[in-house]
Amino acid sequence: MLIPFLSPQKLSAITITCLTGFATVAIADEGMWLFNAPPLKQLKGKYNFEPTPQWLEHLQKASVRFNSGGSGSFISANGLVITNHHVGADALQMASSEQHNYLKDGFYAKTNAEEIKCSELELNVLVSTEDVTARVNVAVKAGMSSDEATKARGNAIAAIEKESKEKTGLRSDVITLYQGGAYHLYRYKRYDDVRIVFAPEQQMAFYGGDPDNFEYPRFDLDICIFRAYENGKPAKIDNYLKWNSRGPSDGELTFVSGSPGRTDRQLTVDELTDTRDRDVPNLLRMFNRREVLLAAWGQRSFENARRARDDFFGDQNNRKRYDGYLAALLDPEIWTLIEQREKKLRDAISRDPKLGSAISAYDRIKKAQAELVKIAPRYDYLEQERRSTVGYRGPRALYGSLFKYARLLTRAIDERAKPNGERIPAFRDSAKESLELELFSTEPVYDDYEILRLTDSLTDFAEKFGAENPLVKQILGGKSPRGRARELVTGTKLKDVAIRKELYRKDAAALQATHDPLLDLARMIDGPAREARKAHEAQEETMKQAYAEIANARFALEGTSNYPDATFTLRLSYGTVGGYEQDGKQIPAFTDFDGLYQRSAEHENKPPFDLPQRWIDKKSNLNLSTHFNFVSDADIIGGNSGSPVVNKAGEFVGIIFDGNIQSLVLDCIFSDKQARAVSVNSAAITEALRKIYDANALVDELTAAK
Amino acid sequence: MLIPFLSPQKLSAITITCLTGFATVAIADEGMWLFNAPPLKQLKGKYNFEPTPQWLEHLQKASVRFNSGGSGSFISANGLVITNHHVGADALQMASSEQHNYLKDGFYAKTNAEEIKCSELELNVLVSTEDVTARVNVAVKAGMSSDEATKARGNAIAAIEKESKEKTGLRSDVITLYQGGAYHLYRYKRYDDVRIVFAPEQQMAFYGGDPDNFEYPRFDLDICIFRAYENGKPAKIDNYLKWNSRGPSDGELTFVSGSPGRTDRQLTVDELTDTRDRDVPNLLRMFNRREVLLAAWGQRSFENARRARDDFFGDQNNRKRYDGYLAALLDPEIWTLIEQREKKLRDAISRDPKLGSAISAYDRIKKAQAELVKIAPRYDYLEQERRSTVGYRGPRALYGSLFKYARLLTRAIDERAKPNGERIPAFRDSAKESLELELFSTEPVYDDYEILRLTDSLTDFAEKFGAENPLVKQILGGKSPRGRARELVTGTKLKDVAIRKELYRKDAAALQATHDPLLDLARMIDGPAREARKAHEAQEETMKQAYAEIANARFALEGTSNYPDATFTLRLSYGTVGGYEQDGKQIPAFTDFDGLYQRSAEHENKPPFDLPQRWIDKKSNLNLSTHFNFVSDADIIGGNSGSPVVNKAGEFVGIIFDGNIQSLVLDCIFSDKQARAVSVNSAAITEALRKIYDANALVDELTAAK
Repeated sequence: MLIPFLSPQKLSAITITCLTGFATVAIADEGMWLFNAPPLKQLKGKYNFEPTPQWLEHLQKASVRFNSGGSGSFISANGLVITNHHVGADALQMASSEQHNYLKDGFYAKTNAEEIKCSELELNVLVSTEDVTARVNVAVKAGMSSDEATKARGNAIAAIEKESKEKTGLRSDVITLYQGGAYHLYRYKRYDDVRIVFAPEQQMAFYGGDPDNFEYPRFDLDICIFRAYENGKPAKIDNYLKWNSRGPSDGELTFVSGSPGRTDRQLTVDELTDTRDRDVPNLLRMFNRREVLLAAWGQRSFENARRARDDFFGDQNNRKRYDGYLAALLDPEIWTLIEQREKKLRDAISRDPKLGSAISAYDRIKKAQAELVKIAPRYDYLEQERRSTVGYRGPRALYGSLFKYARLLTRAIDERAKPNGERIPAFRDSAKESLELELFSTEPVYDDYEILRLTDSLTDFAEKFGAENPLVKQILGGKSPRGRARELVTGTKLKDVAIRKELYRKDAAALQATHDPLLDLARMIDGPAREARKAHEAQEETMKQAYAEIANARFALEGTSNYPDATFTLRLSYGTVGGYEQDGKQIPAFTDFDGLYQRSAEHENKPPFDLPQRWIDKKSNLNLSTHFNFVSDADIIGGNSGSPVVNKAGEFVGIIFDGNIQSLVLDCIFSDKQARAVSVNSAAITEALRKIYDANALVDELTAAK
Repeated sequence: MLIPFLSPQKLSAITITCLTGFATVAIADEGMWLFNAPPLKQLKGKYNFEPTPQWLEHLQKASVRFNSGGSGSFISANGLVITNHHVGADALQMASSEQHNYLKDGFYAKTNAEEIKCSELELNVLVSTEDVTARVNVAVKAGMSSDEATKARGNAIAAIEKESKEKTGLRSDVITLYQGGAYHLYRYKRYDDVRIVFAPEQQMAFYGGDPDNFEYPRFDLDICIFRAYENGKPAKIDNYLKWNSRGPSDGELTFVSGSPGRTDRQLTVDELTDTRDRDVPNLLRMFNRREVLLAAWGQRSFENARRARDDFFGDQNNRKRYDGYLAALLDPEIWTLIEQREKKLRDAISRDPKLGSAISAYDRIKKAQAELVKIAPRYDYLEQERRSTVGYRGPRALYGSLFKYARLLTRAIDERAKPNGERIPAFRDSAKESLELELFSTEPVYDDYEILRLTDSLTDFAEKFGAENPLVKQILGGKSPRGRARELVTGTKLKDVAIRKELYRKDAAALQATHDPLLDLARMIDGPAREARKAHEAQEETMKQAYAEIANARFALEGTSNYPDATFTLRLSYGTVGGYEQDGKQIPAFTDFDGLYQRSAEHENKPPFDLPQRWIDKKSNLNLSTHFNFVSDADIIGGNSGSPVVNKAGEFVGIIFDGNIQSLVLDCIFSDKQARAVSVNSAAITEALRKIYDANALVDELTAAK
């Protein structure tokens, strides 16, 4: 599943080294293009297609970003939004209880009244962009230290965001593109009243489970449909995608509009070496650990499995994704291409007397990287996991929702006292609504599940630093990891939203006087955690500047005809529908319902290849030759999950939900030989909604039949 | 499941720091006692029971060691041997095929003719012991270097073993007890024609799977029955245990006779600190990694799951076991006891002017330990995993059966040219039969499974040392881990037993001239691997001597009234049947069949709580109040799996198969507060064999009814 590394909340919470595009000039169907700098030349040259500004604006405004980490699109005039089931899973999980398991059993609201409001979901629609590069750059004066430069840039960005927010009322984010080669102000219309309309059984959305994840051929109905509301009524949407019930044909040109999370295509060989030899192995150890923890716990009872399901799938997905990425990095053929790409650029820079000084940036990156490696353990375990699993943002030593609340509360109140521009980004005024949405989430908190994860992460912490480490001893407070976790979880009052709201209203002194085991702990480690953050940010700033120098040199050589690395903001990709060869065998572009039933039969209908009962009962209703999933060579990555696939007429013909295993290399280098994006066909969605789920009112709305 | 750290083959293959007993003097039901130094005083004092020499000899000779890693006992005059299902699992797996899955479906041979011969199974019965301490010690002269001392001791031991083997025809092993405080020559009668008689479905043997593993209450029929043959006929056994069909009663004194694998009760605080902070976390990362690898692969098809089942269960078991052990080491209460134990001994040594010099041994251990840590990565990845998963002995970088064969072949031929005493123990004359049994195993080799494991372990290797490491590059040979694994596995001829036999007959020069990708690889890394072994052994020798000094000082203080640490040799434990308190709740000593059916119902009969079909069909046949499993406070550890539990009359009343989660602390310190050994009741075995499996002939033989 294409889950991004970082959700937008995460993006705003840390200083990101925004890495951008000095790839080789895009050929083939490469590229995650800005909507204000689309690949017009390539589309004209290869496909003789010239999208109009109106065509682009319509698609942009019909595209929706899910701040739980994914993409989607409006598909009706009354606010229907479609995304992937795995993007909506968080919301389904939160809406579920011991009595109603919507994640497992699916959900369909026949009427507006039956729709379920999500407790913590924000949709963003990009309504305008503005180049603010000059205004940001002017704030950074020659001779400033790294620290001063960060602060000056942060202040400038915060001021721009605040001004825009006040002027327009829109969520306003300054996005760093091309490593600081450009800063664009993105204004988003926010929808925070979002309701669940339809979800199939997770079993059907994620049919084939982990074995089929990142594989093709595929048979997944990975969709989830919401409705955006405004002022308590279904939102009126001008720009929505027209539903095409036929789906695309083999060889057809299609477009993907979504928010790819992050690519590493511009990293230096030195940094990719560290990624390969240290960073990814370290992440894999964490995912392996959590996958085993949650699998073992989930096996104990159905209710355990339900509680952990979403996190468990996230960990499995990350594990498979990073396994594939690591395999690509360990492939000497790919590594040689990476080395050649850098050598080519370095040679070109060296040859140009005006650019030559940029070469020293490579060494600065290497040095800063080495420093980051030293800081990494303290930063990860005390401040926050750099590349979090989906659904968690917090220090690795204290995994779970409860410590996250304690951290957010104490930090929110401390940061509030500072000038807006000097705050940690997640606590700036522009991020206030997102912060409160997270902090006041009504997601249920389960003591046993919190104790499980906290015990494990405290153990992990003790393993990493040694049980005699003073900080370890201080955090454990003379208890075993399990004893301490039990004490913290059973002793805290932060489970109660009302109490979190009450505490949030306090000032620093009043909060200081409030004692709660988790708040006390959050305060106790705040000093070392902030120190680690500061050290981390200083090196990131150095790297950012060095990468910007290289990027500038590349722009001088290549011009602006290239796309920047992914930044979890809206991008346009394109590609043709088509199969590929694997182990000497041709994999066709389409699967169909018939193939689904065959696959189930081969596996004796056993998990994860079992069909939901209604798919068995209603088989005869279906046209079995309906195309189910398809692949194209569009350039996508985690975060593109739920992106609409549209045809030249701008109609919805499918929805991205995955890449095949060969696509995992796209993180660091593009390839269209075998790498494919995997989508659900709009034809299958229409057929299943009508014939399996009896969701005729919904299909009527989609197809505007009524 | 109580699987030992090291099988006897592993024991003979590496120089072990045999750690022995300077625990506090045994109180309660503590101790894994030597049969030639039984706890007569304790039994008399606490239970007023005085076993006769005949009683002891009978039990000793009725006890059987499984060299696949476990214990068992003779239970009929015609060679029937009972052990745990998980001890017999290797044999069941090897006997299975795509057509017959005896591990999954169970097996029962109604007649001798239907019994299945095992391809790689050796049973050892301890027939005599002899103290050879003086003869070993005299070989080590004052002023010898560590290296010379190791060699001299090795030569002396090899000579003793060889002489004994030649004189008696018996397997003869010199066992190091009390860290070299004593050397005993153990003579074993070997049985290598062993046939499978009965096994229940693995589902029933391991009912409750990973969630119930190391837990109590419990409902497992963890048994497997073999028959030993001699000269093609059922072996005639004089010393076998009389079957008691009633099982033990609450509070009854019982005895356990088996081969506990290894305890760490005498490690210094420094070494246990390393165990806690580095060694166990490192092992857990490996088990997590393998558990995830095999779970993911097993999910792809039933046949994959079958092929990986045994290794998968082994990894899960180890993971849970080490999780529990680590939790104990991270418990400050337990750690304080460990520190106090050492302080008490150190103080006593310091106070005694004759012993004071032994204090310096603690520092020597600490220094040697630090050196071992440095060598550890090369030793583990190139030479062999120090604490192997069950079923694998070889370097961690090259996981799988095929490289193991390549290593054994090249080493066997190289070592053969050396004097017996200078060889690596696994290649000495005394170990020849075990070596050949392993090397010529007819266990099926599956290309896909070998490629899977080899790809993963090569990736693990690259992660550990970095992809640019010269040895990594040399071993990968310019390929990706997967590419290299595929090339090695598809290119080798070692899958064929006949070829392995042919190669084994060659001399060094002829083998050198034979090219096979895996043999070439084994030769390529033999130099660095042997270097790592040598460096490792030198430090182990230093530690061994230092531990022996401490042990000697302890003996001077405590006398010989204590038991040595476990060494996977025969020991006698004892304890009373009885429940315990947990989280304020009383856990009763016995479970019954009724509880099994209740547990299944609570979990809707879904895996791993599902019942085999015949247990559902024949429920009404059973007396549901029959005691199924029970707990006692006997002092057991991994390797005790399959140990008979006998009453004062020497009758078989049950069979050890596990410890509860609290018993995992027994590795490093004894406790009878909550730690319990878990057994199958003989009453349940009798009832199930007759009423569920219709194995009347078998029960008749057990109960000598015919």
